[in-house]
Amino acid sequence: MSNKPVVTVDLGGTNLRIALVVGDEVVNRHIFPTPRGAEAIVGLIAQEALAISSASSSDIEGIAIAAPGAASRKLGGLSKAPNLPELNGYPMAAQVTKLTSLPCIVENDANAYAAGEVVYGAAKGMQTVVVITLGTGVGGGIVLEGKLWRGVDGSAAEVGHICIEENGRLCGCGAKGCVEAYSSATSMAKLAREYGVEASSAREAYDLAKQGNEAALKAFHRAGTALGIVVAGLVNTLNPQAVVIGGGGSSSFDLLEPGIWQELKIRAFPVAVENLKLVKCTLKNYAGLLGAAALLRGLA
Amino acid sequence: MSNKPVVTVDLGGTNLRIALVVGDEVVNRHIFPTPRGAEAIVGLIAQEALAISSASSSDIEGIAIAAPGAASRKLGGLSKAPNLPELNGYPMAAQVTKLTSLPCIVENDANAYAAGEVVYGAAKGMQTVVVITLGTGVGGGIVLEGKLWRGVDGSAAEVGHICIEENGRLCGCGAKGCVEAYSSATSMAKLAREYGVEASSAREAYDLAKQGNEAALKAFHRAGTALGIVVAGLVNTLNPQAVVIGGGGSSSFDLLEPGIWQELKIRAFPVAVENLKLVKCTLKNYAGLLGAAALLRGLA
Repeated sequence: MSNKPVVTVDLGGTNLRIALVVGDEVVNRHIFPTPRGAEAIVGLIAQEALAISSASSSDIEGIAIAAPGAASRKLGGLSKAPNLPELNGYPMAAQVTKLTSLPCIVENDANAYAAGEVVYGAAKGMQTVVVITLGTGVGGGIVLEGKLWRGVDGSAAEVGHICIEENGRLCGCGAKGCVEAYSSATSMAKLAREYGVEASSAREAYDLAKQGNEAALKAFHRAGTALGIVVAGLVNTLNPQAVVIGGGGSSSFDLLEPGIWQELKIRAFPVAVENLKLVKCTLKNYAGLLGAAALLRGLA
Repeated sequence: MSNKPVVTVDLGGTNLRIALVVGDEVVNRHIFPTPRGAEAIVGLIAQEALAISSASSSDIEGIAIAAPGAASRKLGGLSKAPNLPELNGYPMAAQVTKLTSLPCIVENDANAYAAGEVVYGAAKGMQTVVVITLGTGVGGGIVLEGKLWRGVDGSAAEVGHICIEENGRLCGCGAKGCVEAYSSATSMAKLAREYGVEASSAREAYDLAKQGNEAALKAFHRAGTALGIVVAGLVNTLNPQAVVIGGGGSSSFDLLEPGIWQELKIRAFPVAVENLKLVKCTLKNYAGLLGAAALLRGLA
């Protein structure tokens, strides 16, 4: 395990963020529109990594890329990348290494996010933690006894499509009752509008709820109980020390929390609930960058 | 890791089974009514273990007890034992060792069952497996990369109380929509009666279904889809190599399987489903005894 600086990349369908992680600090952060095509993406990462590296006073440990899709360590890339199909099956890590002579890993972005919150953020010092991210969708990452749990195909912790209501709300995936259809930031805004709240975003609905708008309060309670059913199921399955709620939607944490605890108390094994910590993320947009660095450092 | 014979105990609220496990064979098996009181239970185990040990031609590795409740390795006993309250917090392993001079471990019975199926049974040779037992209730055990996952309080894999339908059937635990209220052996029989089938047990309903009784077939399909929703959630969470269906209710496996696959295909991450094996247990009543031995031997 090393603590040398790491060049870290948060690769999204729209933007590519690249930065240097020194200790637990993100420095020298740059944002680019994500280029199209695998070679252009890898070329930009390599070019910027070399620039950051040559500006750094100390040796670089390597390059850690958090990317959307199922990541395969064997491939050194994404085995499934619905949002960046050009990277499907592309050996990204080997290509980056070829261009930079630096070691490179590729990790699923939600997994990197989770590793970040566990190693440097809300669950720092804890060993067994489930992280749930509320964004456009609902994602997650699982750390068990200090190591990221990837599953046999790298598709573990796809918690957004856990069902809470067999014939419930229609999810973007085509199934009914997925928690993503209730508790993603997008779904929270939608729920609020269905409850009669005039809000174009979860943020606006949240502000109205904080001003006492009853319908908005009800919508967040509903998103909270839906999330709570899934949290209870995860606690019954894994019995973790903590559950971290992250992603943009976590800015409504205080309004979601009562619904989550309500369902935990009804549905989860009492001893596991008594000892459980339910906490809000602390690293925000830096969790993925820091988590990717933590994974390269062998810290999760 | 050793392969010496192990005295192994399957302790239930009604019966206590004790046997010798030699390799992967259960020999010299005896059944007693479970005595009342912690000292009487421990006394009977010690007495019978010494008798089995003195009749064995080789050295005994130790005594492994599978018992109902949350097992704590630290305590060497059950930290919660609703079905045998006299064992709540009682240091069973230390007492057995005191009386026999043999090492002793105490493990949750569903966890031991899971370890048995993974090390010696349906998932032999696999590393990452979820086992679900359909009995009076629904329980389970999780093996990750060859090691039993206990959770931070020893209460992991309580899969019976995972919710499939927020306002669904009332479960014995007081919550609504737990999978146990649909897919335990008891609930399967109850479901069948509600569907108009004249059957006093899941076995009778199964026989009628196999004779073409439409209502009975529907009841098993319903139990299967309910179970499938939970299996899909577990696959999304852990991405295991296999899911094993065990317990008495698994004798209806062929009628449950189509409903499980139906929900897996709708609700679980495709790559994880493609590679997943869904199998029926093979060790039946010996899984707990063999699994306890496997755990003492350090094989799970």
